Amino acid sequence: MSSAAIDFARQNQPRFLEELKALLRIPSISTLPDHNADTRHAAEILAAEMKRIGLKNVRLIETTHGGQAGHPLVYGEWLHAVGKPTVLCYGHYDVQPPDPLDEWLTPPFEPTERNGNLYARGAVDDKGQMYMHLKALESLFESGKGKLPLNVRVILEGEEEVGGEGIAAFVREHPEELKADFALVSDTEMFAPDLPTLCVGLRGMIYTEIEVRGAKTDLHSGMYGGAAPNPFVALAQIIAGLKDREGKILIPGFYDDVEVPSAEEKAAWKRLPFDEEHYREKEVGSPVLTGEAGHSVLERTWARPTLDVHGMPGGFTGAGAKTVIPARATAKVSMRLVPGMTPKKSFAQYMSFVESLTPKGVTVEVRMIHSGDPIVVGTDNPYVTAAKGAMREVFGKETVFVRGGGSIPIVGDFERHLKIPTVMMGFGLPDDNLHAPNEKFHIANFYRGIESVIRMFERLGG
Amino acid sequence: MSSAAIDFARQNQPRFLEELKALLRIPSISTLPDHNADTRHAAEILAAEMKRIGLKNVRLIETTHGGQAGHPLVYGEWLHAVGKPTVLCYGHYDVQPPDPLDEWLTPPFEPTERNGNLYARGAVDDKGQMYMHLKALESLFESGKGKLPLNVRVILEGEEEVGGEGIAAFVREHPEELKADFALVSDTEMFAPDLPTLCVGLRGMIYTEIEVRGAKTDLHSGMYGGAAPNPFVALAQIIAGLKDREGKILIPGFYDDVEVPSAEEKAAWKRLPFDEEHYREKEVGSPVLTGEAGHSVLERTWARPTLDVHGMPGGFTGAGAKTVIPARATAKVSMRLVPGMTPKKSFAQYMSFVESLTPKGVTVEVRMIHSGDPIVVGTDNPYVTAAKGAMREVFGKETVFVRGGGSIPIVGDFERHLKIPTVMMGFGLPDDNLHAPNEKFHIANFYRGIESVIRMFERLGG
Repeated sequence: MSSAAIDFARQNQPRFLEELKALLRIPSISTLPDHNADTRHAAEILAAEMKRIGLKNVRLIETTHGGQAGHPLVYGEWLHAVGKPTVLCYGHYDVQPPDPLDEWLTPPFEPTERNGNLYARGAVDDKGQMYMHLKALESLFESGKGKLPLNVRVILEGEEEVGGEGIAAFVREHPEELKADFALVSDTEMFAPDLPTLCVGLRGMIYTEIEVRGAKTDLHSGMYGGAAPNPFVALAQIIAGLKDREGKILIPGFYDDVEVPSAEEKAAWKRLPFDEEHYREKEVGSPVLTGEAGHSVLERTWARPTLDVHGMPGGFTGAGAKTVIPARATAKVSMRLVPGMTPKKSFAQYMSFVESLTPKGVTVEVRMIHSGDPIVVGTDNPYVTAAKGAMREVFGKETVFVRGGGSIPIVGDFERHLKIPTVMMGFGLPDDNLHAPNEKFHIANFYRGIESVIRMFERLGG
Repeated sequence: MSSAAIDFARQNQPRFLEELKALLRIPSISTLPDHNADTRHAAEILAAEMKRIGLKNVRLIETTHGGQAGHPLVYGEWLHAVGKPTVLCYGHYDVQPPDPLDEWLTPPFEPTERNGNLYARGAVDDKGQMYMHLKALESLFESGKGKLPLNVRVILEGEEEVGGEGIAAFVREHPEELKADFALVSDTEMFAPDLPTLCVGLRGMIYTEIEVRGAKTDLHSGMYGGAAPNPFVALAQIIAGLKDREGKILIPGFYDDVEVPSAEEKAAWKRLPFDEEHYREKEVGSPVLTGEAGHSVLERTWARPTLDVHGMPGGFTGAGAKTVIPARATAKVSMRLVPGMTPKKSFAQYMSFVESLTPKGVTVEVRMIHSGDPIVVGTDNPYVTAAKGAMREVFGKETVFVRGGGSIPIVGDFERHLKIPTVMMGFGLPDDNLHAPNEKFHIANFYRGIESVIRMFERLGG
């Protein structure tokens, strides 16, 4: 089925891609204060583009948390499709830090095309996917002579990678300003290349720091080794106590509220084209996969809680040898939560267990850095039906339902405060290297994403 | 008893101190390649000073190891005291890295006097103590009209803090060039302020890195948590397996060859003025002391092997949150060895046990960075007698014999290849912050050290 908007989108593919590259050149790394100006610059560029394509009432919404200025939200709307549904398009313009830099084949903020992919930090997470929405809207405005087939609100945030407190507060405090029938989020991936996918569940998370302090100052390990506590050894003992060698988390009560997926959902997962050996070798690349016995890989990554350590700052990390017993050491530890669990209860269980695991001679402080609720969204609504139909046209295949192992806390906020369902229609691929060196976006999926959004919106407005 | 050399040393104290400050301003950090030029500069300054005071045949001796250029040795001699003993004066001009920089009250390479102390990296370890030897020799040359009471060789190294491979090779390959009757090393500390101390035993060490590799690249902990191995968790499990919560090392066979100190030596240690509570509160500053049950603090730090972790580089160590499962992580782990143990056997036991502790899903590589033998030196020789007599004159007290928890591998090399005993006569204090921020040297001890060396050499030549 042809459409003037689709034609416009196809004719303008090269320009759309160049615009995306320009956006990817801005190192909007939200967790690094040195990049605050870059992050704001990305917000301003997007606001200008939203105005240009025809959205109204475009503005930056400042955020604050803990008394400190955050990164702004970008808002725009077009609300003149009388009697038609309203979509809330969400995306984020901030990105993860690019380190380790020396593992990138081309620099993270110099977008580079190779083998049909666009390589850059943020290519798929989430600048590229967020930009699909804007380019679909531009195509619909152009072909519709300044009108859209449905009502649209767009909200973009710059703090997704640092916990999203700003947008969470805005949704909680101003739900009327985001009033819509459903939300559209493109920040997930397809289960396999060419397989249209909707994500219907996400894990939540708690991201923490455990700081251990021993001696009052760094000490020489020759002189004091045998009498002074070693904070890294203490952290190792704590971490080793949190999770056993089979991947089972040992925090008392941690699994108590875990909701087991339905037999039907588990059966559908078994039918997905999943090659565990390919996944192990090509995606993970480790000798064996790890995790809880008795659960499949998809269950372990979608429907089971996990615990990971991301880094252990402190002490001597340079080349060579320094014989120091550091006064303190920190571990960055996060847990993924699944439906049934809550960040508050899980954190309390965790903190109390960490304290009980702390050896004598050191003191421990456990800090929550950020958290997000796990969620499961419904599949029985017209928005999911429109999304499936749109992707059937674009891909020529039926859509599969999957869950995601990561967290998109805003989806829970939309559900809780706006009382609307979210359609998670993402176009990433499993090997897109999210949060890792050589992040990429398959360029064909950028274009298919734009067309899927166009067709979905035309169906809902038709 | 007065002496022209002592008079000269006393008159020149202010100049000696200024010269030491100039030496301390050179950041001769041997482990950091960026400071290679500084390290060489320190060697050249010392060679010039050795020539100026009257030593002969002064030269830099280049070192290489593993095909790479090392930091030079500095050599000088005066061998015209016919029939008198020959001393080999040893010291090192390299220093530890100064980090964490923000804990220094004044910058590490801007020597600053406060409360009778000189604060700088290397003040006591070992530039200040090494410089005592040169200033004692200068005083003896000046008062002796260009002659010394005994024969002297001076050898200084610039790699003590990185394993001392260069001097070890030189001693092994050219023992005839260092032929002497005994060695004098001032790189240890006094047991208490005003208590003259000779060190008669040192722990050895092995300094290692354990590198764990999991996935082939960094992965997103949301997408892969539950299936991908986590190298930090693996390291925590390994480290927690190496040492129990009571401080006992669990490596099979590790304690088999440990020589227990004699009942007489242990009894002498009990008579030392050691206040465990003061040590805990003022030196270590931790809630309790740690270490093996059933052994006193002095036994634990002098005569028991230990295991410490110095840092765990890898992963995300910045501020905030990054949800990465790092592809690899490293732990810097060292063990102190005591008489009876050998680095070779202990490393083999350790490596094999680390491998057995490695969980599935990751690969491990254990690297030896450097090592040193533990040693015990004799106390029944004329050099120790002369040192005791000299310090009795300077301090007005009898000398105590202690051991050191740290390592001075060269002392073992002198014993093995030159067949000579070493007198370890040091003037540091327990709170001098070796290898830590705010390293200092008590200025009075700098002067007392110079006088002790003068009087010791006059006794041996008298």
